[in-house]
Amino acid sequence: MTPVEVTVALGHRSYPILIGENLLDTAGPIISRLRNRQAIIVTNDVVGPLYQERLTACLRNAGCSVELITLPDGEEHKTLATMSFILDRLMAMHAERKSTLIALGGGVIGDITGFAAAIYQRGMSFIQIPTTLLAQVDSAVGGKTAVNHPLGKNMIGAFYQPQLVLADTSVLTTLPDRELRAGLAEVIKYGLISDPAFFQWLIENMNKLLAREPAALAHAIKVSCENKAGVVAGDEREEGARALLNLGHTFGHAIEAGLGFGTWLHGEAVAAGMMIAARVSRRIELLGDTEVDAIEALLRAAGLPVRGPRLGFDRYFALMSHDKKVDAGQIRFVLLKSIGKAFITKDVPPEALRIVLEGEGVDDC
Amino acid sequence: MTPVEVTVALGHRSYPILIGENLLDTAGPIISRLRNRQAIIVTNDVVGPLYQERLTACLRNAGCSVELITLPDGEEHKTLATMSFILDRLMAMHAERKSTLIALGGGVIGDITGFAAAIYQRGMSFIQIPTTLLAQVDSAVGGKTAVNHPLGKNMIGAFYQPQLVLADTSVLTTLPDRELRAGLAEVIKYGLISDPAFFQWLIENMNKLLAREPAALAHAIKVSCENKAGVVAGDEREEGARALLNLGHTFGHAIEAGLGFGTWLHGEAVAAGMMIAARVSRRIELLGDTEVDAIEALLRAAGLPVRGPRLGFDRYFALMSHDKKVDAGQIRFVLLKSIGKAFITKDVPPEALRIVLEGEGVDDC
Repeated sequence: MTPVEVTVALGHRSYPILIGENLLDTAGPIISRLRNRQAIIVTNDVVGPLYQERLTACLRNAGCSVELITLPDGEEHKTLATMSFILDRLMAMHAERKSTLIALGGGVIGDITGFAAAIYQRGMSFIQIPTTLLAQVDSAVGGKTAVNHPLGKNMIGAFYQPQLVLADTSVLTTLPDRELRAGLAEVIKYGLISDPAFFQWLIENMNKLLAREPAALAHAIKVSCENKAGVVAGDEREEGARALLNLGHTFGHAIEAGLGFGTWLHGEAVAAGMMIAARVSRRIELLGDTEVDAIEALLRAAGLPVRGPRLGFDRYFALMSHDKKVDAGQIRFVLLKSIGKAFITKDVPPEALRIVLEGEGVDDC
Repeated sequence: MTPVEVTVALGHRSYPILIGENLLDTAGPIISRLRNRQAIIVTNDVVGPLYQERLTACLRNAGCSVELITLPDGEEHKTLATMSFILDRLMAMHAERKSTLIALGGGVIGDITGFAAAIYQRGMSFIQIPTTLLAQVDSAVGGKTAVNHPLGKNMIGAFYQPQLVLADTSVLTTLPDRELRAGLAEVIKYGLISDPAFFQWLIENMNKLLAREPAALAHAIKVSCENKAGVVAGDEREEGARALLNLGHTFGHAIEAGLGFGTWLHGEAVAAGMMIAARVSRRIELLGDTEVDAIEALLRAAGLPVRGPRLGFDRYFALMSHDKKVDAGQIRFVLLKSIGKAFITKDVPPEALRIVLEGEGVDDC
């Protein structure tokens, strides 16, 4: 099966996303983008043992020197301290500006590796090989890189585009069920934001996705990447429409931070966050019951949480005011006018938020 | 006296450098570039006490909220740890993307503040108010930001342009002599790279500069900024000609790292580095004795070192191979074809380097 290609159009910084089976064993696309012969793979101690040998062998056979940096697995390691460890390793191995960092792993590996690439010698080459569904449809695409701060998620980072994204659908076969479901939250997000036809397709094909049918997965990844690439090409640095991609994320980040990073998966928090956004949208009479029910049904079908934890309104609010989406002290919310029509607003009645965040949007999970 | 304006032309990211007296008391140019009303001044415990009250008062009178972050003085604090401290403070004070960091200090403050601005929430607003001659003519202009790594100077950083640079010539009156001289090294550098007329002007006006005559200083700063702005506009990310600005810096960084950062001032190391470059250029028969002598005479007139410390050839070489200017294992040197004509080469006979770095280019300083 020939890989499908989606382009992120950013002028001379444009790059392709290749989606297909067994791309890990195909050195060609990677080699063609290296600026020297040094590749440095950053992975973690869970993903590395599964795939690093295949990737390393394929690059070495093509004449590259390959080094490996292995991080401990988990969102709790997405810190400035871990970044500092990567930088120490890069310095020790005399990595150059033209050397290429390859992120082999999920969103945490991609975010932290991209950030290291952005700031090592003020910017080195960088390739994403996302190994989770979530990373393939979201975090590996679009150039947002970051680490967490104890007071807020992704607060330290850079906009820094990779030279290439390889989404190998075969690696999803080893993905734990919980992670597959978490990835589906971001897939569903694209339907909610601007693609009602895709939302409908997801309702009809959720069983195939959960059964990991390759054709269904490849289609979902392709449509998700097309949606994201379109938004990113129009607003790389999130000065406008890109903020729509944060649907569910302001609430979701508060959930992740409130419970401690790593307790809920990012996608799980986003699922609950999207439901909170949908319920708030209903409270201010934008969405009807039918639509809220359809969203809830699809998220439930994907095995995702549809309510946030009961943190209390004040705690939610405090956590959200630490979000990057705050402007002039006001939180910027992404809400829904309909399924397939998200919008950005700072003007949400506190009472609507309170009702949802203390009532229907949360439970004792 | 109306401030002189030099523009760094980078499309929609273009910004002005204003050069003039008592700009610290003129809120107008700053206010016009703030994106919200929150200004956060980053300074150190030496410069802060001299100028922060004037700047703070002028901004508060114009209706801004002003916060202050004070760092310890010195190159040894230009580290990821200090950066982390700034980020903690920004998080604690709920700084937003649209808040503005103002660097009030020399090159260390400017570099670290710019880097913090680049990565806090993936990029916030940023203004440079350089208070040393070196920062006014070099480090505050052009968007290079960084911190040092124990294994190499400026190894961690970003290209990130400020919205405005204010070079207040009045603050140079409190600058220690040694720092003034260190700044003159970078001023002389512009003459050597591409401006023989300016080199001649410097020979004729060095006494006035050392006597801190305002008109002479303003002229030297203006011509230096024009030279630098021209190079940066043509090659922001140092993919080509911008590397010329590193004349003396490959050797200079080795000197700084070899002696321990902070032992020699950056400008002092650059002065010795430029002399090493000149002597190597003579060894390979590009420069004649007359030109090398003229460069040495001007650096001596400015009270700058004209030889590096005796670190040994191997140590120099090891330190230089950690430099960002390394490409495919080869060190990229900036040498001189004449006064006013620098060029980049990877092709320097090791013997010429050895003779200079073990003999005429060094002494037991």
